[in-house]
Amino acid sequence: MQQYELAVLPGDGIGNEVMPEALRVLDVVGAKHGVRFEYRHFDWSCETYKRTGAMMPADGLARLRDHDAILLGAVGWPGVPDHISLWGLLLPIRREFDQYVNLRPVRLLPGVTPPVRDKQPGDIDFWVVRENTEGEYSQLGGRQGEGTPTEMVLQTAAFTRRGTDRIMRYAFELARKLGKPHVTSATKSNGIYHSMPYWDERFAAIAAEYPDVTVDQDHIDILCARFVMSPERFDVVVASNLFGDILSDLGPGVTGTIGVAPSGNINPERECPSTFEPVHGSAPDIAGRGIANPIGQIWSAAMMLDHLGLAEAGADVVGAIERVLADPSAPRTPDLGGRATTADLGGAIADAV
Amino acid sequence: MQQYELAVLPGDGIGNEVMPEALRVLDVVGAKHGVRFEYRHFDWSCETYKRTGAMMPADGLARLRDHDAILLGAVGWPGVPDHISLWGLLLPIRREFDQYVNLRPVRLLPGVTPPVRDKQPGDIDFWVVRENTEGEYSQLGGRQGEGTPTEMVLQTAAFTRRGTDRIMRYAFELARKLGKPHVTSATKSNGIYHSMPYWDERFAAIAAEYPDVTVDQDHIDILCARFVMSPERFDVVVASNLFGDILSDLGPGVTGTIGVAPSGNINPERECPSTFEPVHGSAPDIAGRGIANPIGQIWSAAMMLDHLGLAEAGADVVGAIERVLADPSAPRTPDLGGRATTADLGGAIADAV
Ligand SMILES: CC(C)[C@H](C(=O)O)[C@@H](O)C(=O)O
Ligand SMILES: CC(C)[C@H](C(=O)O)[C@@H](O)C(=O)O
Repeated sequence: MQQYELAVLPGDGIGNEVMPEALRVLDVVGAKHGVRFEYRHFDWSCETYKRTGAMMPADGLARLRDHDAILLGAVGWPGVPDHISLWGLLLPIRREFDQYVNLRPVRLLPGVTPPVRDKQPGDIDFWVVRENTEGEYSQLGGRQGEGTPTEMVLQTAAFTRRGTDRIMRYAFELARKLGKPHVTSATKSNGIYHSMPYWDERFAAIAAEYPDVTVDQDHIDILCARFVMSPERFDVVVASNLFGDILSDLGPGVTGTIGVAPSGNINPERECPSTFEPVHGSAPDIAGRGIANPIGQIWSAAMMLDHLGLAEAGADVVGAIERVLADPSAPRTPDLGGRATTADLGGAIADAV
Repeated sequence: MQQYELAVLPGDGIGNEVMPEALRVLDVVGAKHGVRFEYRHFDWSCETYKRTGAMMPADGLARLRDHDAILLGAVGWPGVPDHISLWGLLLPIRREFDQYVNLRPVRLLPGVTPPVRDKQPGDIDFWVVRENTEGEYSQLGGRQGEGTPTEMVLQTAAFTRRGTDRIMRYAFELARKLGKPHVTSATKSNGIYHSMPYWDERFAAIAAEYPDVTVDQDHIDILCARFVMSPERFDVVVASNLFGDILSDLGPGVTGTIGVAPSGNINPERECPSTFEPVHGSAPDIAGRGIANPIGQIWSAAMMLDHLGLAEAGADVVGAIERVLADPSAPRTPDLGGRATTADLGGAIADAV
């Protein structure tokens, strides 16, 4: 029996409530497909920070490395500044393990009423491919004249040829693989003077390697508007770290799936473990009540199955999620308009698998 | 009779078609309120660039300075890279004249069907206050190793205390003036390491000067999603140059008004002329056919009237736009689902004034 060792980091808040449901579903789908998942639990979180002054131990990254994948819940808690909790745990994992692709589906699901009108499941179904290790998320920069009237802060974004080309190639390969040979590039070369014209230049160069794939490029301002006005036009959208972050929240906002959207932080070469985490955060407002929607975590586990080469198992989990959502008599957590608990909904999905 | 000298720059494409309608409406509303507008026309555009190698003459900015305001159409045309046309005309005007506020309304209008469901005129009515002279739109940076595999581009954003504080104060003052004492700050301090935590720090400091104004802050990713999911929650949103650019296209995208949205590039101290321009671009696809919607340009002229202290005249123009849009028998350009020309719609609004 094939066995996978998974690092499990529930993190903060509802991360601790939704993670067990994902593991439950993994166990069920694993049994069905004859694979076993071994879990190693790590309780690193804002609690750890409050206790020790660091989000994880000094050898934290080394201890994660030796796993087939990482399942992450949510990181962040009131009282710990976001840039400390994120740059102390989430972002170092993405970088140390060279998870240079952040992959997120934007999909209108059955049983979910989106805020936009006149759209049916099937109309909106695309992927955001976000650069995940460089660009605007950067520690380059600093402050001068602190506390004086001439105080000034510089923040430098870095775009390398290697980093830019590889994310674009991933997007083009994905478009081919999906049989939707159409890639849209998010840019802002009319306003951002150095980096975005460079982004466009590399996009044109990589596009030339894929003559069978049609391309578009939109400035991020109008692209965001088009996500709302004509989301059906997209298939694969490739974007820098910041623009991809924005688009991959906006997309699920448009489809009404922000509470259930998954993401993969992927090292496509599999030289390091990849991380799978829901798009939602730790939700301090509902944490501890057992009513968080576990679908984002479960769907993230499905993306992990795909990444591990267990595509059928992944499809089983996504199918189970869709069937449960489409079934009016299935349990629904409060965010979906029902009164079910996290465990009720997780159990229903496990049963549907 | 009070007289104002206006610099008129139609720019490229449909800029040339919508501008005459704005001037026509200004003449009518001026006559009604006993003020006269004198127009000085400047034909600087991508044409100028193709002819002379520059978007405007070397003394262009000096020639604009001596006006009460600038009316701009649209800048940009295929064949001239955006960063050349914009950094050669639009952006230098914003900076030279210290137009540090970019102000844009997000408003659901009668007679316009938005892409979001279940919203009525009145539900969505807020302002985006965008920093307009510094931040992410910056020429700081450059490229190293051009053409080599280690090629790298750096792009530096600059946030000064002066630039940050003054845009935030403007937002708080606006919120007070509107009688909607509630300001939302767009941030990304969880990912962008230096500039955005600084932005938050200044927001907290300025908010403390306005204890009567309630505040929120949202990371730009979730904020974009909330523009779609719950746009009624916003009153005044203050944002950096890039984030404000994104939000002030996304907002009109949500209300279905992207083709008609106006903007002001404002120097609140009136030491320099302010520029008023529609949010839409030069629209090469429909340029030359006389069917562009002139409302964005006319509404921008209304914002100019406000800025010049002619608030009643400004309100007359906005009222006329709303009445014409709400009237099913009024002319409609193709973007609004009708067959009217630019001049038909401009004429109807002039008549309604
Ligand atoms: C044309 C472009 C440089 C400009 C900007 O990004 O500022 C436009 O999008 C706008 O919002 O006025
Ligand atoms: C928490 C934050 C740093 C993170 C990001 O911006 O990358 C999150 O928004 C995400 O998209 O995973």
